[in-house]
Amino acid sequence: MSRISYLNGEFLPHEKCFVHIEDRGFQFADGAYEVTLFENGKLVDGDLHIERFFRSLREMKIEHNFSADFLRDIQLQLFAKNNLDFATCYMQITRGFANRVPYLPKDLNPTISATVSPGKKMPAQDFANGFSFETHDDIRWKRCDIKSVGLFAASMINQEAKNNGFDDAIFLRDGVVTEGSFANLFMVKNNVLITHPADNFILCGITRNRFIKLAASIGIKCEERKFTLDELLNADEVFLTSSSLILRPAREINKKLIGKEGKNREMATKLNELYRLFVGSS
Amino acid sequence: MSRISYLNGEFLPHEKCFVHIEDRGFQFADGAYEVTLFENGKLVDGDLHIERFFRSLREMKIEHNFSADFLRDIQLQLFAKNNLDFATCYMQITRGFANRVPYLPKDLNPTISATVSPGKKMPAQDFANGFSFETHDDIRWKRCDIKSVGLFAASMINQEAKNNGFDDAIFLRDGVVTEGSFANLFMVKNNVLITHPADNFILCGITRNRFIKLAASIGIKCEERKFTLDELLNADEVFLTSSSLILRPAREINKKLIGKEGKNREMATKLNELYRLFVGSS
Repeated sequence: MSRISYLNGEFLPHEKCFVHIEDRGFQFADGAYEVTLFENGKLVDGDLHIERFFRSLREMKIEHNFSADFLRDIQLQLFAKNNLDFATCYMQITRGFANRVPYLPKDLNPTISATVSPGKKMPAQDFANGFSFETHDDIRWKRCDIKSVGLFAASMINQEAKNNGFDDAIFLRDGVVTEGSFANLFMVKNNVLITHPADNFILCGITRNRFIKLAASIGIKCEERKFTLDELLNADEVFLTSSSLILRPAREINKKLIGKEGKNREMATKLNELYRLFVGSS
Repeated sequence: MSRISYLNGEFLPHEKCFVHIEDRGFQFADGAYEVTLFENGKLVDGDLHIERFFRSLREMKIEHNFSADFLRDIQLQLFAKNNLDFATCYMQITRGFANRVPYLPKDLNPTISATVSPGKKMPAQDFANGFSFETHDDIRWKRCDIKSVGLFAASMINQEAKNNGFDDAIFLRDGVVTEGSFANLFMVKNNVLITHPADNFILCGITRNRFIKLAASIGIKCEERKFTLDELLNADEVFLTSSSLILRPAREINKKLIGKEGKNREMATKLNELYRLFVGSS
């Protein structure tokens, strides 16, 4: 069966989903997106993803009439049409097509597209090994709270880390650790979770927030505060979270092993188990 | 006659130029562009625009085999096919189509597209009146030297300035005046031009550089150095330059009139005349 995607009201063979070269998404990165996990017949935190999607669109002043039900339905239909029961949906909305102007043109029809891909479980061995990171100056714009398609900086630095032999990059802005290239970051110190406040310098991650709640449910505190590279390197544990990768433990950062020789997975294991329970029962 | 545009080897009716939703330009702002003016049967500084285009693509690690001759030829053919003798060409190259991955995928066919639009001369009255600007924190990424399609921040702030009753915005980064939303910025003090150095915080404008050279040819010095909002507001003249708008004089910034009640056009007039001569004779 060929891959089915969604574009502006139609479910189409993936290879037939085209947008105009003057779509604002193509010429101005003038669009937002969400990636949502589908498991056990349900969208994981689906409503929260849609709520954040609407927030991004509001912040970008992209006008639309899409309801949460409509967006949810497209996702569920796509999983069904592609026979996927464990998968992610990538959904994007741009301002739409307009002759190129430097400002934000009004009264356009927004362009909505969506694709689905099979989910990936992290092998237990990868979790045990952990991942390597290098830090990089956070050269992105100052509105990382908007989940816009302006992702080139993150993508370039992710690639640069790979070229340098690391798995991924962690951003530092003015000496403060912000987040990973496509994931939020937590460190653990003395059994307390610490993560950057959800201000304009990071994405307010749905999975990040879910982990904070799950941790609280078993009495683990989370401090949302700024911290330095030095604190990060001396943490007991470090891990990154995102809706598609869920939790990626850090073995080493800038070639320094984290915690007990990079092998401490105490908090990561605990939270991962809580997350599995949450996904199974929600 | 319908508008003709260019896409991946073909000259097509504009309304038939489509790219796939998984083009990296649509999902990651993973592309660069140039806008070049065409006047008197010639591209104005066409080679310099192509040179900068290649630099942007190199910095973004976008692989391609396009030659300068090839890109120049597309532009000239587009002007001819659209019967335009005074016009601009917008040309864009993205990394191409790939299943969505967070890094920079290799071995793609880059997507090349181009459109042309009639040129616009600034009415003498607009030049005399000048334009109004408001300053805004420069929230863009830290690689403004790359002419990438990641233009949402500039576009949003341009619109915000318009909503606030101004013509355009001027960026300030850490107290330093960088440039306009889609143009470089010059101030004049005691008959000396002053503009931000061409580092990673501004675009190294072709028209900016041309004005610096033209000024030097008549003995006017240009200091490329950082300066503050306070210096800007106390300049004798301020103007913005770009390849499509050429020179836009500032009447007022943050509601403060610049120079002699916002009406001093001494340097702007001189440079504009030199530019007209340059375009006419080059």
